Amino acid sequence: MSLPKPPLKQLEKSFGYTFKNRDALTQALTHRSAAAKHNERLEFLGDSVLGIIISEALFEQFPNIDEGDLSRMRATLVCGRSLAKLAQRFELGKFLVLGPGEMKSGGHRRESILADAVEALLGAMYLESDLNTCREVVLNWYSKQLAGIKPGASHKDPKTRLQEYLQGRQRALPIYEVVATQGQAHNQQFTVSCQVDGLEQPIRGTGTSRRKAEQHAATEALEQLIQQDNS
Amino acid sequence: MSLPKPPLKQLEKSFGYTFKNRDALTQALTHRSAAAKHNERLEFLGDSVLGIIISEALFEQFPNIDEGDLSRMRATLVCGRSLAKLAQRFELGKFLVLGPGEMKSGGHRRESILADAVEALLGAMYLESDLNTCREVVLNWYSKQLAGIKPGASHKDPKTRLQEYLQGRQRALPIYEVVATQGQAHNQQFTVSCQVDGLEQPIRGTGTSRRKAEQHAATEALEQLIQQDNS
Repeated sequence: MSLPKPPLKQLEKSFGYTFKNRDALTQALTHRSAAAKHNERLEFLGDSVLGIIISEALFEQFPNIDEGDLSRMRATLVCGRSLAKLAQRFELGKFLVLGPGEMKSGGHRRESILADAVEALLGAMYLESDLNTCREVVLNWYSKQLAGIKPGASHKDPKTRLQEYLQGRQRALPIYEVVATQGQAHNQQFTVSCQVDGLEQPIRGTGTSRRKAEQHAATEALEQLIQQDNS
Repeated sequence: MSLPKPPLKQLEKSFGYTFKNRDALTQALTHRSAAAKHNERLEFLGDSVLGIIISEALFEQFPNIDEGDLSRMRATLVCGRSLAKLAQRFELGKFLVLGPGEMKSGGHRRESILADAVEALLGAMYLESDLNTCREVVLNWYSKQLAGIKPGASHKDPKTRLQEYLQGRQRALPIYEVVATQGQAHNQQFTVSCQVDGLEQPIRGTGTSRRKAEQHAATEALEQLIQQDNS
């Protein structure tokens, strides 16, 4: 049913831990679509393990930062997108055990499936080791992100912030449109216009991807809106 | 500014742990209204400590129960109300350090303040001990609740349960109405009436938010309905 997989040793190397209980390792990689013995219970446990490790790390790293900022930073670090990025670093998709439907539809690339499997692996590791072992492994995954994270900076992306600002004021949602692309395949420049309820002119943003261009336009639009609404 | 408090030894006895760091103990009991060095950071940490202990306990106690039921049981055990009940068992209200405003308005009885302080104490204990020590203390608090908890039993909120009960019997849905509000902005008391198909009198509930008042009314209404329908 499943494609040939690379040896699990490869995964353990990038993950940073060698599992003693091979059955638990396999279970942690098994999506509910593939077998009755799937990874959701391990994910439940791993989620809490991740929570305490990241909470403690932030608590120690930022001795003078209040609970609100700590919570926001934690949310950024443990969100599905962050975990899916870790999964990509481990090339976890190659090792997932998926049912035929999920396999066909690209489940091994789906962020939520990847993120859940990272937590499940952490759960399986915790069961056979202890919190100290898990802490060492997890802080190693997060070393760069922890070194770069800052309290106070908004941990929501600009498009989300713009949307929430407008929704909070019962205004229409922004409309994004690509108005120009320049350059060749690997070196493109996108220009996006963002039409915002409450601003006379559409705002333009540029970037090396459509998404980045939209984020830049949203940042600028939000600044203009706030300035205008406060004046 | 504060009333004379009983010796902290009393609290430590019912809590089940003697703190080495007395400053941290005091900080864990200090609400943000009272001092700059308050308990919110410790609460942030304690929340994660509680999460992993309860998750692990449920994971082990219910080896064949799926993640959904485990999550619902965890939510029941760590919710504000459960923590506030623990706080009442510890008579925590007597030891809280509150600002003058909170003191006047009965903050030492408020569920959210009590629940937060329990988590903060747990955070302080974790910082000076380890997960094993915390686990022992916490599982002792929860021994009865863990012995009694059942997967599948309703961990739904009372309004949902009332609604489902009525729908299952083809009765009209309940009608909630705020009939009184008392107090000022940050310390309001809501009284809600809940009219239920099958009960002669509307049921009243009170709470510090409209939602809580409705939940209390729904709990009471459901109890009366079940009693009546079974008699």
